[in-house]
Amino acid sequence: MIIDLKYGERIDDLQIKGYHIIQDPEKFCFGMDAVLLSDFAKAGSTDRVLDLGTGTGIIPILMAAKTDAKELTGLEIQMASAEMADRSVQLNDLQNRVKIVQGDIKEAGSLFEAASFDVITSNPPYMIGGHGLKNDDSPKAIARHELLCDLDDVIKAAARLLKMSGKFYMVHRPFRMADIIDTMRKYKIEPKRMRLVYPFLDKEPNMLLIEGVRGGKARMTVEKPLIVYESQGVYTEEILRIYGKI
Amino acid sequence: MIIDLKYGERIDDLQIKGYHIIQDPEKFCFGMDAVLLSDFAKAGSTDRVLDLGTGTGIIPILMAAKTDAKELTGLEIQMASAEMADRSVQLNDLQNRVKIVQGDIKEAGSLFEAASFDVITSNPPYMIGGHGLKNDDSPKAIARHELLCDLDDVIKAAARLLKMSGKFYMVHRPFRMADIIDTMRKYKIEPKRMRLVYPFLDKEPNMLLIEGVRGGKARMTVEKPLIVYESQGVYTEEILRIYGKI
Repeated sequence: MIIDLKYGERIDDLQIKGYHIIQDPEKFCFGMDAVLLSDFAKAGSTDRVLDLGTGTGIIPILMAAKTDAKELTGLEIQMASAEMADRSVQLNDLQNRVKIVQGDIKEAGSLFEAASFDVITSNPPYMIGGHGLKNDDSPKAIARHELLCDLDDVIKAAARLLKMSGKFYMVHRPFRMADIIDTMRKYKIEPKRMRLVYPFLDKEPNMLLIEGVRGGKARMTVEKPLIVYESQGVYTEEILRIYGKI
Repeated sequence: MIIDLKYGERIDDLQIKGYHIIQDPEKFCFGMDAVLLSDFAKAGSTDRVLDLGTGTGIIPILMAAKTDAKELTGLEIQMASAEMADRSVQLNDLQNRVKIVQGDIKEAGSLFEAASFDVITSNPPYMIGGHGLKNDDSPKAIARHELLCDLDDVIKAAARLLKMSGKFYMVHRPFRMADIIDTMRKYKIEPKRMRLVYPFLDKEPNMLLIEGVRGGKARMTVEKPLIVYESQGVYTEEILRIYGKI
């Protein structure tokens, strides 16, 4: 398959099933958060999966590699990102399982049928509003800051589109934990499982992985800590395993 | 100071400032949760501190040892426990700083003046309702199960009795995390700091320490993990430090 690359784009090897992804380092490259979310999330062979704010399409593509999910859809508001993600889908010959839709999370309720997904994933912008930004509307700013959608928009859309008992998986920052739990409950997605990602054993966590169940009962499990580095520059065994290195 | 012990009671050395506590193993003995909470909580020299559901009085007595708090009050509903806690206060000659009040958390609003405490601590019953109990109203059952008060009662009382910007410190179980955050926000005590206690590095956390600020702004810090055991039966350095062993 021959895929056109645009100026500034490159193809990165995902080191799983021979899959690759097109990225533009000037715009946005996926990080460990996307990799950890695609490992934390689960999907079965009959599941319809939706990724809200898919960017380069990294999460549906990794989940296509890691799960048997029947159908994976990535929703992305930025035209150029959606188009690039679509080329990555073609590059991996995944057109039969992965679809990229260009559109706004705030209008997801009219783009997709209500209660039609078994699983929804999201690696949304972490930073509140345009905090610290000066009229920056670059793809990087949009991916990192709540400029075009906020936490409430993402969870509201997920609640509308998930089937009853469907699963919602999100990666976010621990400083938003109270907002996350509060907003999930507001939209009746009960937090059921959480894992905190600590860069080092003696450092504060810098990522939070959370699973919610639409209409679930109150009772959650916090999992064992996920530690990233054994020592400076040396990944722990679990991280190596998630990255498929061992 | 000569203190009468009742049948079944014993005196335990708290290993700090020569303080001791009276406990009855048939009723309830304090656990690591009380020790960790008294270390996680902070109080300054002008602070009035209230402990909701004080049991043996362990938390105000440990905080009398660890902080300069001007005045510490323990509220306990069970007459026999309150009376025993009061004897522990006398045993340590703390009558000038520590007071034990017998009364119901649900009526705390009429026992104390509104917005009159700088700091409120609580190590409340963890288990929802009488789950798993068969008409058991023993002191142990009351300390562990939400028989006489529940999470909502505790946080509601704290919100009423705390000054604006006053601090609330609680130890609880991680499976209640969503309830805890939700209820704190309901009563305008903003979760600001959390620490998870993992028995071993590769196990789920079994305790959650949380600090809230009455009327605080949304943004929380999750701290580095608190690991209890280095290996089977061997405490980590941090636990040894908290217990004053090193």
